[in-house]
Amino acid sequence: MTELERDEVTKEKLQKLGHRILKQIEEGENPEFEKPVRSRSNVEYDEEEKVLTLGDKKSSREFMNIGHARKFMQTMMIASKCKELIEEGRTASVRELYYQLKHTIPGLDENTLEDQEESDPVIVDLETALDAIREQMHLIADPRGTLFGPIKIEQQGDVMDAMKMGRSGIAIPSIVDDYNFVEHDADYVLVVETAAMVNRLVEENFHEENNAILISTQGQPSRGARRLTNMFANQLDLPIYVFTDGDPWGYYIYSVLRAGSMNLAFESDRLATPEANLVGMTMSDVQEYGLENVTENLKGKPKDKKGGPTKDYKRARDLMDYEWFQQDEWQDQLQTMLDKGIRVEQQALASNNLQFVSETYLPEKIERGDFLP
Amino acid sequence: MTELERDEVTKEKLQKLGHRILKQIEEGENPEFEKPVRSRSNVEYDEEEKVLTLGDKKSSREFMNIGHARKFMQTMMIASKCKELIEEGRTASVRELYYQLKHTIPGLDENTLEDQEESDPVIVDLETALDAIREQMHLIADPRGTLFGPIKIEQQGDVMDAMKMGRSGIAIPSIVDDYNFVEHDADYVLVVETAAMVNRLVEENFHEENNAILISTQGQPSRGARRLTNMFANQLDLPIYVFTDGDPWGYYIYSVLRAGSMNLAFESDRLATPEANLVGMTMSDVQEYGLENVTENLKGKPKDKKGGPTKDYKRARDLMDYEWFQQDEWQDQLQTMLDKGIRVEQQALASNNLQFVSETYLPEKIERGDFLP
Repeated sequence: MTELERDEVTKEKLQKLGHRILKQIEEGENPEFEKPVRSRSNVEYDEEEKVLTLGDKKSSREFMNIGHARKFMQTMMIASKCKELIEEGRTASVRELYYQLKHTIPGLDENTLEDQEESDPVIVDLETALDAIREQMHLIADPRGTLFGPIKIEQQGDVMDAMKMGRSGIAIPSIVDDYNFVEHDADYVLVVETAAMVNRLVEENFHEENNAILISTQGQPSRGARRLTNMFANQLDLPIYVFTDGDPWGYYIYSVLRAGSMNLAFESDRLATPEANLVGMTMSDVQEYGLENVTENLKGKPKDKKGGPTKDYKRARDLMDYEWFQQDEWQDQLQTMLDKGIRVEQQALASNNLQFVSETYLPEKIERGDFLP
Repeated sequence: MTELERDEVTKEKLQKLGHRILKQIEEGENPEFEKPVRSRSNVEYDEEEKVLTLGDKKSSREFMNIGHARKFMQTMMIASKCKELIEEGRTASVRELYYQLKHTIPGLDENTLEDQEESDPVIVDLETALDAIREQMHLIADPRGTLFGPIKIEQQGDVMDAMKMGRSGIAIPSIVDDYNFVEHDADYVLVVETAAMVNRLVEENFHEENNAILISTQGQPSRGARRLTNMFANQLDLPIYVFTDGDPWGYYIYSVLRAGSMNLAFESDRLATPEANLVGMTMSDVQEYGLENVTENLKGKPKDKKGGPTKDYKRARDLMDYEWFQQDEWQDQLQTMLDKGIRVEQQALASNNLQFVSETYLPEKIERGDFLP
């Protein structure tokens, strides 16, 4: 689909919503629309697709309901503005959207929106009701992350060569749906937690020598980085390897990239990449690569039998309970982490030498397919 | 200076330090070196240069001093590693540096470094002692910020055209000293607090129509973004306009870009840009552009005569006390802010229409030179 075709689809969804409401009004009915329930109770792990999804529970929002009327009005207002954005070919931040729509209703001493905390949830309502992510409705989120590697990408008529970006890289924008992959010479995509590690790999020319597309997420991946990873897997059929710190927080980054997140379960088909595998850091790496002296201690160990775990310890236990971490390999890794009370960072690999990660660790593990599922 | 020449200068500084210490040892003296005192008491505002600088107070670090010996050893170790990095043409993150140097001293039951909190201050010691910023010693910080506009930049043999970067932009790296400005067609540089505002300006084609280089800092500017702004002013003689939210936090971002920061006062000549001016948002804008309905309330108003201000109120008062905010224009702005109890965001300009900022607000204010000093 071209960008224009994608826009047309979203615009039609917004129009259909408007027409249905209009018809209800004309027929003297109570205007209402349905949307999936978003609470945790309706979030399910789909064993087949290996991603988090929303269940079947629906709720309806009615205009003639004192508890719904204000939100109903806000939803119509935001839907209308998004249609306008699509027609104008503009995008807006959720903050701009808020300022654009905030005004005093004529004849009433009331504002359409009091603060952004009112408009943000309505955007999510619309996303779930219409099955269209906010980027498709031309709303942008904060960008984060960079891109390097053997691929040329066209956006807005500009062709960017991610192999010719020095040590700077392409800044991954909030909306990547209009990225056209012109040509590439990549064997796989490596999604990396820290910017410093990507700097290391670029400096060692890892991306060129291994035909690897590199994405730095700089912590929790942004929506843009998640969507881009998904597009690389789906549109280019490239294997996705994720490279994080060996700690519960790094593993959760992996889990969000692979299975999606609970808050955005309704967007998993566009933001999650169930084909992704974790290349490292693992607890097994510690012994295999002699990193015993450069591990860090986990924080939050229960003080005594009565006290529960906190911080790292608690987070590791949380992960062990998640449905999508039930594979034996993962349970083993997490149990080892808890037993030894240690975590190991990507950059601990520098304790051998700086080029160890690019010349030995990554090529070796990728070559022999030594991944966690 | 080319990259190689710059490297040579830094390497010589490191070598000179080493040779001096060696000479002291050979002559049976107590090895020691001097460095400027970095505490607040030695930070001065230079009225002439309009930047923060370190004063003349020096302290010395001696090997034969039980309180200094460990730090002395660490300083030598880090200086030696930095020299190695320069010779190898590699850079390292401060985290990698820590892992590279952490080891148990043979014959002793002691580690060279216990955690990164030991190595980080030693890096700053070296920076001040040698008058060389960490980037010159091949150490990288976290990158943040993006770049768009009519300029071609060469880095590592790659030429990047910042006008041909779609809506993505060039990711500003930690080290920009090796940026070579190949050619440009820019009239000025606009440094912008939020990524969303830069997205707006790029979408409206503001950079092309106004020959403007755009930098998004995404909050407090990174060292890379600060250095790049400084280079644009010094190497290309371009006017620098800063565009932040109209609140104490936005104004502090401006102040860091213009005058430097207290922690890094010793680096002001490389990281500060005293030629910069603030284009907005100002308290005067609120009335002039009819933004009365889209201001936000300041937080932290003193509850009664006894309670002091907190949050926004406290921060605004702090700014009013800084030497570099003593101009009448600034005192007026900040006093108005406190009197009215309001702040105004960049994105509030969207309440008119999305293109208002690019078609009216910025061109008008820049045209008539309506800046804060």
